[in-house]
Amino acid sequence: MTSKKVLRFGLPKGSLQEATVQKLAKAGWNVSVSSRGYIPYVDDAELQIRLIRAQEISRYVELGYLDCGITGHDWVIENGSKVHEVGEFIFSKVSSRPAKWVLCVPEHSKVKSVKDLKGKRIATEVVNITKSYLRKNKVKAAVEFSWGATEVKAHELVDAIVEVTETGSSLRANKLRIVDTLLTSTPRLIANRDSWRSSWKRNKIETMALLLKGALEAESKVGLKMNIQEKNLKRLLKALPSLRNPTISQLSLRGWVAVETIIDEHVVREMVPALKAAGAEGIIEYPLNKVVY
Amino acid sequence: MTSKKVLRFGLPKGSLQEATVQKLAKAGWNVSVSSRGYIPYVDDAELQIRLIRAQEISRYVELGYLDCGITGHDWVIENGSKVHEVGEFIFSKVSSRPAKWVLCVPEHSKVKSVKDLKGKRIATEVVNITKSYLRKNKVKAAVEFSWGATEVKAHELVDAIVEVTETGSSLRANKLRIVDTLLTSTPRLIANRDSWRSSWKRNKIETMALLLKGALEAESKVGLKMNIQEKNLKRLLKALPSLRNPTISQLSLRGWVAVETIIDEHVVREMVPALKAAGAEGIIEYPLNKVVY
Amino acid sequence: MTSKKVLRFGLPKGSLQEATVQKLAKAGWNVSVSSRGYIPYVDDAELQIRLIRAQEISRYVELGYLDCGITGHDWVIENGSKVHEVGEFIFSKVSSRPAKWVLCVPEHSKVKSVKDLKGKRIATEVVNITKSYLRKNKVKAAVEFSWGATEVKAHELVDAIVEVTETGSSLRANKLRIVDTLLTSTPRLIANRDSWRSSWKRNKIETMALLLKGALEAESKVGLKMNIQEKNLKRLLKALPSLRNPTISQLSLRGWVAVETIIDEHVVREMVPALKAAGAEGIIEYPLNKVVY
Amino acid sequence: MTSKKVLRFGLPKGSLQEATVQKLAKAGWNVSVSSRGYIPYVDDAELQIRLIRAQEISRYVELGYLDCGITGHDWVIENGSKVHEVGEFIFSKVSSRPAKWVLCVPEHSKVKSVKDLKGKRIATEVVNITKSYLRKNKVKAAVEFSWGATEVKAHELVDAIVEVTETGSSLRANKLRIVDTLLTSTPRLIANRDSWRSSWKRNKIETMALLLKGALEAESKVGLKMNIQEKNLKRLLKALPSLRNPTISQLSLRGWVAVETIIDEHVVREMVPALKAAGAEGIIEYPLNKVVY
Amino acid sequence: MTSKKVLRFGLPKGSLQEATVQKLAKAGWNVSVSSRGYIPYVDDAELQIRLIRAQEISRYVELGYLDCGITGHDWVIENGSKVHEVGEFIFSKVSSRPAKWVLCVPEHSKVKSVKDLKGKRIATEVVNITKSYLRKNKVKAAVEFSWGATEVKAHELVDAIVEVTETGSSLRANKLRIVDTLLTSTPRLIANRDSWRSSWKRNKIETMALLLKGALEAESKVGLKMNIQEKNLKRLLKALPSLRNPTISQLSLRGWVAVETIIDEHVVREMVPALKAAGAEGIIEYPLNKVVY
Amino acid sequence: MTSKKVLRFGLPKGSLQEATVQKLAKAGWNVSVSSRGYIPYVDDAELQIRLIRAQEISRYVELGYLDCGITGHDWVIENGSKVHEVGEFIFSKVSSRPAKWVLCVPEHSKVKSVKDLKGKRIATEVVNITKSYLRKNKVKAAVEFSWGATEVKAHELVDAIVEVTETGSSLRANKLRIVDTLLTSTPRLIANRDSWRSSWKRNKIETMALLLKGALEAESKVGLKMNIQEKNLKRLLKALPSLRNPTISQLSLRGWVAVETIIDEHVVREMVPALKAAGAEGIIEYPLNKVVY
Repeated sequence: MTSKKVLRFGLPKGSLQEATVQKLAKAGWNVSVSSRGYIPYVDDAELQIRLIRAQEISRYVELGYLDCGITGHDWVIENGSKVHEVGEFIFSKVSSRPAKWVLCVPEHSKVKSVKDLKGKRIATEVVNITKSYLRKNKVKAAVEFSWGATEVKAHELVDAIVEVTETGSSLRANKLRIVDTLLTSTPRLIANRDSWRSSWKRNKIETMALLLKGALEAESKVGLKMNIQEKNLKRLLKALPSLRNPTISQLSLRGWVAVETIIDEHVVREMVPALKAAGAEGIIEYPLNKVVY
Repeated sequence: MTSKKVLRFGLPKGSLQEATVQKLAKAGWNVSVSSRGYIPYVDDAELQIRLIRAQEISRYVELGYLDCGITGHDWVIENGSKVHEVGEFIFSKVSSRPAKWVLCVPEHSKVKSVKDLKGKRIATEVVNITKSYLRKNKVKAAVEFSWGATEVKAHELVDAIVEVTETGSSLRANKLRIVDTLLTSTPRLIANRDSWRSSWKRNKIETMALLLKGALEAESKVGLKMNIQEKNLKRLLKALPSLRNPTISQLSLRGWVAVETIIDEHVVREMVPALKAAGAEGIIEYPLNKVVY
Repeated sequence: MTSKKVLRFGLPKGSLQEATVQKLAKAGWNVSVSSRGYIPYVDDAELQIRLIRAQEISRYVELGYLDCGITGHDWVIENGSKVHEVGEFIFSKVSSRPAKWVLCVPEHSKVKSVKDLKGKRIATEVVNITKSYLRKNKVKAAVEFSWGATEVKAHELVDAIVEVTETGSSLRANKLRIVDTLLTSTPRLIANRDSWRSSWKRNKIETMALLLKGALEAESKVGLKMNIQEKNLKRLLKALPSLRNPTISQLSLRGWVAVETIIDEHVVREMVPALKAAGAEGIIEYPLNKVVY
Repeated sequence: MTSKKVLRFGLPKGSLQEATVQKLAKAGWNVSVSSRGYIPYVDDAELQIRLIRAQEISRYVELGYLDCGITGHDWVIENGSKVHEVGEFIFSKVSSRPAKWVLCVPEHSKVKSVKDLKGKRIATEVVNITKSYLRKNKVKAAVEFSWGATEVKAHELVDAIVEVTETGSSLRANKLRIVDTLLTSTPRLIANRDSWRSSWKRNKIETMALLLKGALEAESKVGLKMNIQEKNLKRLLKALPSLRNPTISQLSLRGWVAVETIIDEHVVREMVPALKAAGAEGIIEYPLNKVVY
Repeated sequence: MTSKKVLRFGLPKGSLQEATVQKLAKAGWNVSVSSRGYIPYVDDAELQIRLIRAQEISRYVELGYLDCGITGHDWVIENGSKVHEVGEFIFSKVSSRPAKWVLCVPEHSKVKSVKDLKGKRIATEVVNITKSYLRKNKVKAAVEFSWGATEVKAHELVDAIVEVTETGSSLRANKLRIVDTLLTSTPRLIANRDSWRSSWKRNKIETMALLLKGALEAESKVGLKMNIQEKNLKRLLKALPSLRNPTISQLSLRGWVAVETIIDEHVVREMVPALKAAGAEGIIEYPLNKVVY
Repeated sequence: MTSKKVLRFGLPKGSLQEATVQKLAKAGWNVSVSSRGYIPYVDDAELQIRLIRAQEISRYVELGYLDCGITGHDWVIENGSKVHEVGEFIFSKVSSRPAKWVLCVPEHSKVKSVKDLKGKRIATEVVNITKSYLRKNKVKAAVEFSWGATEVKAHELVDAIVEVTETGSSLRANKLRIVDTLLTSTPRLIANRDSWRSSWKRNKIETMALLLKGALEAESKVGLKMNIQEKNLKRLLKALPSLRNPTISQLSLRGWVAVETIIDEHVVREMVPALKAAGAEGIIEYPLNKVVY
């Protein structure tokens, strides 16, 4: 008896949700989250999406309720989940800065290092990460769970907090000072260890990872195409080592070749004048959907 | 030495926040929550506002960090906080239905009553309320903390959930069935017990309660004013017992009086034709800001 | 056997809908039109609302499917419906201009009067009104029904159009010239003739008309209140005949009375300086919800 | 004397308008509909756009006021217009479901088939289609024209309705049951028969049809490009029959070729892993504006 | 020969425009500014509105093109206009802070007082105010006219600027330091001197000023009404001197009076508990449109 | 001593700002204008952006405060600035109409030509351009500076105005008639003359101009690619001279070549049918980011 093959995929409900849905669409899977029903729709019969808080995804992947899922590295560590990490995905072009969990105190606090926290009280959403950090530093302090709005508490209710930040601007606005960084976190695709051993599931997960990578890669890349005389080609390639592995094809016009390559969008403004100087003609730049090396 | 008198007031961050700020404005206190600074501004030097998650307010009122605050009755119970309850405030005209914490299972689950939960797993945000409910019913079951999106879990990850609802529509959309109600909750103004014993603080808290009540009361009330001949007055009042305690004043025109009263907006449409029939003239309805009996 | 008493009320779907729902709310009936269900909800068990195109309401009131309804006078005429007209309601404060159905031709057309239309073609949404107008003017011309976007046709597809307008600005923008006005129309509350003979239904309809009138009346009225010395009162009343039927009550301060009245908002700006000149003090103006004489 | 060559094109005002304007832009004609003027602007001196209700376009194409236009197949049939149908255009990627005109009755009606309609009354916007359907089924019933909001009438005013639907969800929300489907309709490009005989006009219409098809085709397609060793090429093409008619060109690197093809976007996620497995390198996917085979 | 009496009123186009239109509406004049036509409509045949930049109004009032207008005091001074100032109007409840024209330099500039500006260059929109200020301080410096975006220039293009500010936050954001304040400005109603001498025009202007004042006054006031026993009245009035000049009227109920007064909204929260303590019953607060003493 | 190389670039604040920022982004420079700080951020350490009113940029480029900048040709002339003009940039695809400064009078004015202005008063934002125009026409008239809202003045305050317009629609709405055109203006990249002599700066400016041109060029261009039999190629190229300089590469399929070219988007609709007729197959059109010849 052969049962229908299905992979259960955990989509992080909350701040990562929108970005994850967008990236999956670019990779080729269209997910629509209905406001009414509880199971999101995806246009792939082999896939089932479950919308679960980022904080809990690693727990349910570990238990096998989910085969795989996208979540932050931080919550994998906080939950102490035993899962297989398939890959890291930097989702946002704009804020490519990873999230950091930092120990903070009010600007004018006397606390200068973790050692000064002895006997103090610390509020945080990541109780386990914080306790482990204190143990490592051999500091005894009380850690209490905070439901959020933690920044406010640092000034009056507790002595320090451990909070997540990307740019630090919210911390500065709250007049807090960063004492130390406990953990740096980025989004990850994680898999249940048994699912990873199953060849069909592993293959499916790897396909998703491959196309997600391809779509993310394409966001900062463009295609560049130009014509050049063969005699100038070597000089061109030598002068521009960053023009790696171009595709070179013969043109009908004797002595000329077409050169095509994929490069980072942000080097185009340096590359184009150099290409022109080296004899390239008819240079065009075009957008890309996916890049898979 | 006399220190400056200040009352610290906890404003619930999150779903109740907007409504609470609006009602305080109607009561006479204008609070502005800056997106940058951590302490909201209020136009009363005797008041300090702290923005704290509804889940934690009762904890900090009990500890004395706050003198008083607005929070749901549910979180007072969940936290087991020893505080003084000053009053109940039904904030919303539209959805005056109180929030209920209910035990839910999938529509087709075999669980019919709490007794059927023996040996099962329950996910909830209110672990203590749920455990206490099970103890009272002498049922042994595992209760696990859920960070949210709890409805989704009832179908696959656990056997039952305890979730909050107002109309039940979200539960129905998720194909869940309500088995029992654990707790009914409305917003409350709570006070620290020591603050309540301090006469200045208690007086300040009672003033805020009085004006909040006055503003809430006025939302469903209107003023009604009319002229009538004195000889018709008795008949009018007899025929309309709901026209309670009207203010009657002499007009210069001999034999005529002015009648003025405050009534529920939703009875106006029955009252006005009856008043006209009883001889009232020049009936006007006007809006109110506050009503204090 | 007594059946439950119910009045069926036709709400005009389309351009009048929003305004009608707002006015009913001011009168005391809250109607909510769900985007899904086909029957709007109203907070009165004796009322049933039906949402029907303004063009068709009079037809269904005549047939008795509806007891009463709000519609434009134009569609009552176009449909030739035999109904009882309960009252006229000018809904909009801003554009109190009634809708007019006008005969239009292109700016440079040779048509100067209805007589010039002999043998021509006219497009319109109101075929009957147009035909009746032509008969009255003893002009023979072809009238064809238009689904809308009628302005466009006047330049190329037909010789003239009969179209509705409030300010004429859309006509001017389309380079059309008004030749004649066929009909001026305002919203009406109409009733089925049998329903009007039933005492319970007539009473209910009259109550709704009374409160709608009261709410509409209040939109352009304000309350005015002032104190004045009794000796100046007669002079005041004489000088200001428009201050009709004020309520005058004795003040405790010997020789002073309070004068209170309801006046049109747009005469306040003339009244107030005159009142001051006549000796009035502490003049206040306050808003009204309803005014029923 | 040679007059300036011009094609008059009918753009459907209303629900199809926005989509039609977008597709024409993709095809290469930019139409701008001014809110003031009555003739839309198009950047082609040989074209004149007229904005006319979808219901009326086929009528004006038949009469020769328009040379061609976009409209629904349903209105061509309802109007019984004698026109040449140039092609069918499925406009929307999201809801590619065609519109259906269906016979509906209330959920609990006794009407089970068209035969049960004998002697009943039916309301619809498409009177001719409905009458023709009844004739074909040899059923005598009264058909009356409805201005819209037809769903509401089915419960009370008439016995059945004929209404348009895409997904049926609005009908279900109105508690209606579909009894039969009368007509399935998609957008069409239609032409006047004389215009179609004129070689210049026919050529112009066919060009528009060709480019509209090309733009619609491109919406679900992407370009795929990769490098591969010549020795692996045959295996690749054999393994992937769906990779039809690729363009293969020589690279300067001996033994390598570039393979380029156009495929459906939704097969990319299966194709890319297979291509990689077959030895393809540097796979890129890029967006397309038009595809013309 | 008697010509039609008309007053020409200048409405400030730009930042004051919206607020001025709102206040005029509250005062009783409804102005509508069409986006197309050049003359705003007002519902008073004796008034003609002209929409003119605040910077220029005083100029045109002086010349007699306008009889009166609303503008900032600053531009009256800058233009050196000889006009009659009718009154000052503080328009905004929220930001009742007057605008200030300040001399600014970069944070780290060596300029500490106006004396240090000798031989320097200053950019400003108010050249005359600035020159006059320098003369008064006996400092010789070059003043150049700036079209706006003046803050940017202070760092590089000139040595100092004279710029307008309400809270100083924009200056701080631009890292500028305030050296001195040249002028404080609030909105004014100004009149042409000849118009002011014409009795009809002066009367009309004074009426507008009276009602504008009345509407502005009402924004921060509310009506308060309550019943009290006559024997408690004296004590009440003594205890609450701020309850100035209440209107006291006899109630039919022997020994009771009604007390009514107008007070600042922001003292209600202190007043109500005190009133209750003094024996007041049935206290209501209601909104006001205008207050004219 | 070598200082860090930096180019100071003036970005026009106001109506051109948004478009300029967008075009720079397409060219490869991402500028973000913070609402707080006064210096926009750009992701190029060799560049410093200054946000300055378009009216003033040429003045500051001439003085050397800026090395280069984008501004309108009109303001270069009005200011009489001695700068090097690097190039003209037509920014907007939609409204490619250049701005025109025109002399206007009220519709019914007796002024028919510039000669009729003798002894009259003219209001304008461009005083110098206007004076120079009058001198050239040997007309003596008073020119006064206007802050804006100039259209309004033409009817009452002055005899004529000189105002900027693109389509003339705002002038018509204000019932003004155009008498003459003084100047036609488009955006320009201008450079300080000394900066242009510095080789590093000139090189940097030319690179920016090259990439801006490339990005603007790409907005109206697309890539076109097709396969064709070699024997048909010559006929194709002969028949289509506009298909200039195509890239022709050998396909593996003997006797076939791939043809690729860049063409104006608006000729695609003519080109594609012709290409098909000439034997081209698999024609695709794809979007471009940049085109550099």
